[in-house]
Amino acid sequence: MLSRILGPRLEATAHCDLPCGVYDPAQARIEAESVKAIQEKYQGNEDPEFRARAIQIKEQRAELVKHHLWVLWTDYFKAPHFEKYPELHTLFNKATKAAGASGAKGSMDPAKGQELLDLIAEIDKIFWETKAA
Amino acid sequence: MLSRILGPRLEATAHCDLPCGVYDPAQARIEAESVKAIQEKYQGNEDPEFRARAIQIKEQRAELVKHHLWVLWTDYFKAPHFEKYPELHTLFNKATKAAGASGAKGSMDPAKGQELLDLIAEIDKIFWETKAA
Amino acid sequence: MLSRILGPRLEATAHCDLPCGVYDPAQARIEAESVKAIQEKYQGNEDPEFRARAIQIKEQRAELVKHHLWVLWTDYFKAPHFEKYPELHTLFNKATKAAGASGAKGSMDPAKGQELLDLIAEIDKIFWETKAA
Amino acid sequence: MLSRILGPRLEATAHCDLPCGVYDPAQARIEAESVKAIQEKYQGNEDPEFRARAIQIKEQRAELVKHHLWVLWTDYFKAPHFEKYPELHTLFNKATKAAGASGAKGSMDPAKGQELLDLIAEIDKIFWETKAA
Amino acid sequence: MLSRILGPRLEATAHCDLPCGVYDPAQARIEAESVKAIQEKYQGNEDPEFRARAIQIKEQRAELVKHHLWVLWTDYFKAPHFEKYPELHTLFNKATKAAGASGAKGSMDPAKGQELLDLIAEIDKIFWETKAA
Amino acid sequence: MLSRILGPRLEATAHCDLPCGVYDPAQARIEAESVKAIQEKYQGNEDPEFRARAIQIKEQRAELVKHHLWVLWTDYFKAPHFEKYPELHTLFNKATKAAGASGAKGSMDPAKGQELLDLIAEIDKIFWETKAA
Repeated sequence: MLSRILGPRLEATAHCDLPCGVYDPAQARIEAESVKAIQEKYQGNEDPEFRARAIQIKEQRAELVKHHLWVLWTDYFKAPHFEKYPELHTLFNKATKAAGASGAKGSMDPAKGQELLDLIAEIDKIFWETKAA
Repeated sequence: MLSRILGPRLEATAHCDLPCGVYDPAQARIEAESVKAIQEKYQGNEDPEFRARAIQIKEQRAELVKHHLWVLWTDYFKAPHFEKYPELHTLFNKATKAAGASGAKGSMDPAKGQELLDLIAEIDKIFWETKAA
Repeated sequence: MLSRILGPRLEATAHCDLPCGVYDPAQARIEAESVKAIQEKYQGNEDPEFRARAIQIKEQRAELVKHHLWVLWTDYFKAPHFEKYPELHTLFNKATKAAGASGAKGSMDPAKGQELLDLIAEIDKIFWETKAA
Repeated sequence: MLSRILGPRLEATAHCDLPCGVYDPAQARIEAESVKAIQEKYQGNEDPEFRARAIQIKEQRAELVKHHLWVLWTDYFKAPHFEKYPELHTLFNKATKAAGASGAKGSMDPAKGQELLDLIAEIDKIFWETKAA
Repeated sequence: MLSRILGPRLEATAHCDLPCGVYDPAQARIEAESVKAIQEKYQGNEDPEFRARAIQIKEQRAELVKHHLWVLWTDYFKAPHFEKYPELHTLFNKATKAAGASGAKGSMDPAKGQELLDLIAEIDKIFWETKAA
Repeated sequence: MLSRILGPRLEATAHCDLPCGVYDPAQARIEAESVKAIQEKYQGNEDPEFRARAIQIKEQRAELVKHHLWVLWTDYFKAPHFEKYPELHTLFNKATKAAGASGAKGSMDPAKGQELLDLIAEIDKIFWETKAA
């Protein structure tokens, strides 16, 4: 990823609903990268114990993706954002579904993980536009 | 922070002990930024209900800092790193203490949050050196 | 896992994202009723220790409301529902905000808890219509 | 379940040990329904990845059943109840065991899930009698 | 405590409901000792920030006491034990209540913490008798 | 909080970072004994459902070992201890690694569990020396 090439940078969210005011879609994206990485490792390792751990850990990371996205959708994005980006609700709904049973949770295919990453990338694009605005 | 000026970047860790192979001190640093932000907001708001929530939420974020640091110390850094950087154990021990009762947890002074951030910055520097090596 | 570090927590959802197929907005509503009940008890009891506990427990219950609602929005409601009820995304977004810092989390006023309950009631009405369909 | 036939009703418990005063065995029952549903789905799907997820999720739901029952037993039921219903302790002990390793956790047989539901139904009956008293 | 005087011993429980077969009331007792220690420290420190943290942390430790006791009651003790010790159900019910809102959670008085410890000591006595049997 | 989303979890530590002042390596050791016990039972039971549960539960117990050790390393041991016992940092780092993916988490071989127990025994020895000092 570009970020790793460019060096260390501040990213992940610190959602605390105080509110803290610190948000970043990167946290959801990183968990999704873990999900995809686990799917790839699963495909490359047939050991049943390894695979059992992979499934368990992927389940947890995917749940974290859902949570990070939900937090952005509820705590960061406000009514004016949803007016400016009428596709935003649907995008978040699709992304959180893509992290769930019908998406990355329910499959060990890295293509599912990539679909999730692609949806998060769309959210990330809008997020930074709102930050710049 | 530089990262925000430079735009969106990939950061946070995806610790899963599978292992996933994805680590970044930014996650600890972001939680520490939240801790400091909460301390600052606390100083600026005397409402007892707000302050009670701030203390509770800071406790949780500070615990997350400890966890992220512990994970880096155990799961990312290996014996060769500790040989090359003999100060690394002490640095992690000080940083995790700085996130705890004797540091950021036990104080609403943003200076304590900054001390924690400074220690994390030292870890971050070494981390990226090991990545580049 | 982060959850273990943070201590024991109650997770009372009928959400299992297997998927299980069992959903009911009542769970969100009950947590919201607890939130309002805590606000009412807080107003009637000035003991500082009681009030501190009330704030802490309300924070947890309100977070559960957010989670239950998010799960319904992502795991139960599907695209056809959102087409039939175009107001549904906004309704869920408002309801989850009403459970958060700008709503029930950030206030000990039972009126805020009632606002949250009213929004959940609107969701509940739509939910049962989809069930009957 | 009667509650679903009769329409949406107050279901889940809001255990908060403040105390909140809101309890309902339905929450334990719903989790037990999830457990049984997972057992049924497991029997009908031989995919090893699906089965691994089913086992993991059932473990979590069953643990929730135990917790909801424990909370009722400790926080809702009082000494006069135990005097009036001398079988109540044993009933709760059997029900929480039925949710555990020797019961629903340790088996993918829906009959085990049904045994758990039957025990919860007995608790539910007594619960509503105490409410009516 | 006897265990500390006699040297380090097997203390905490390893409840895993696999079952693992490793149980010890000491874990509940240790958490109760923490609860009492927090109550004592609270009485000796009037700083509002310290007190807020103390209340929050005591709430968590007390909840752990409840959980450890519940696990012993459900996972360790069996029907023959309850026959041999007919007071056991009531003892566990009183102990878990003593850790809750009407007991140690709801008070910063170390006497409440001591009451909880006394009840746990009674459980511990019976526990070791069953182990010796 | 993330922890709520992830489901109910047991957190059995005497760590409260208030600070409470109550610590004992026995807790880490007991969890490690559970880990080894699970590995032994796994070897003796080929039932796929049992094995799946064993892997899942061992993962959780091993994570608890890591946490208990980290807490001792950060919250109990102080700078003078690390000066007196210069091997202590390395010992803790090895022990937490032994509880992780390269150790007990990643293997169903009881020998791995025993290695972890041996490292904890070394920590325990130093711990009680510091207590006696």
